[in-house]
Amino acid sequence: MSKGTATRQSILAQAGLLATQIGLEGVTIGRLAVDLALSKSGLFAHFRSKEELQMQTIEYQRQRFVDQVVQPILSAPGGLARVQALFDRWMAWRTSQPGGCFFAAASFELDDRPGPVRDRLADLQREWLSTIARIAASAIKRGDFRADLDADLWAHEFYGMMLSYHMAEQLLRDPAATTRVQRSFDNLLARSRTAAAA
Amino acid sequence: MSKGTATRQSILAQAGLLATQIGLEGVTIGRLAVDLALSKSGLFAHFRSKEELQMQTIEYQRQRFVDQVVQPILSAPGGLARVQALFDRWMAWRTSQPGGCFFAAASFELDDRPGPVRDRLADLQREWLSTIARIAASAIKRGDFRADLDADLWAHEFYGMMLSYHMAEQLLRDPAATTRVQRSFDNLLARSRTAAAA
Repeated sequence: MSKGTATRQSILAQAGLLATQIGLEGVTIGRLAVDLALSKSGLFAHFRSKEELQMQTIEYQRQRFVDQVVQPILSAPGGLARVQALFDRWMAWRTSQPGGCFFAAASFELDDRPGPVRDRLADLQREWLSTIARIAASAIKRGDFRADLDADLWAHEFYGMMLSYHMAEQLLRDPAATTRVQRSFDNLLARSRTAAAA
Repeated sequence: MSKGTATRQSILAQAGLLATQIGLEGVTIGRLAVDLALSKSGLFAHFRSKEELQMQTIEYQRQRFVDQVVQPILSAPGGLARVQALFDRWMAWRTSQPGGCFFAAASFELDDRPGPVRDRLADLQREWLSTIARIAASAIKRGDFRADLDADLWAHEFYGMMLSYHMAEQLLRDPAATTRVQRSFDNLLARSRTAAAA
């Protein structure tokens, strides 16, 4: 990795952290220059505008998510083992940054701000929901999940469970949050499984 | 209502709408002065600081929520009818403002910003989750819901379903969002009911 690339990566890491704390809209070249003790002109050489900085912050987080969540899940054996990996890796992802999940925070922040940043975020969320649905579909195909299960509905319910957990943990600082989401996941598995798999 | 109170209410209505669009942190006296064509000094007479403006915006939304959601739910007969009212009124609330649910947006925005605004929001969310749990508990008591149902867990799962719907509707503009959340709700009811109620 060249020095320029390394600098750029460390700027984007800080931008992502900042976004989970004060929102992606608060991530500006001026604010990052202060936080990282870099010159604004130096930052402008990396990112020509606030929008480009925001877009690249999203791409940086996407790459982290692929490396830490998606790849390990898709390396797990199909069926139930992959569903378990989905839950475990996603839980680990949420705690990999102090401000919680970058994508959950940005999704609720940007949903009413038309533009390329919002569009990119929406595409990534659609992609992720499709991936979850495919994981459920693979569990159906292998006979682990009931044949009448709706994989798309399952994906949205799984996502809802994670969003509820995010709120309990990040906003409410509820000490029971982790135990509760674990129980919700167990219940979801129990009602998704075929009699043979259970 | 005095003229001063009416002005104050219309300022707070605009502030709430703005918060769902650009975030509560973006709601400033300067921005509202421009949007409403009022003088900044006039606005300062109503709200002495940005924090007070934010706090009162929350109280205004809380009152709307009590009037439009909580009171009608608690007027419904207990048990299943009240659970149905919970879903119907909450769904109607989400569409009562173009930017979607004020509280969902603010909760994800402010979860990492310590201070009285975040604390108030967290208290209101805890209160609402307790209300939902009490509604489930009343359905258990009346024999509509299974006796082994965990009302607290049910409340968090219900909330997760609504958050997932919020994302599908607001960020993804998914035309299937309403049908999907209706099916999730039907499924939740089906697995919560006693054999006698079903």
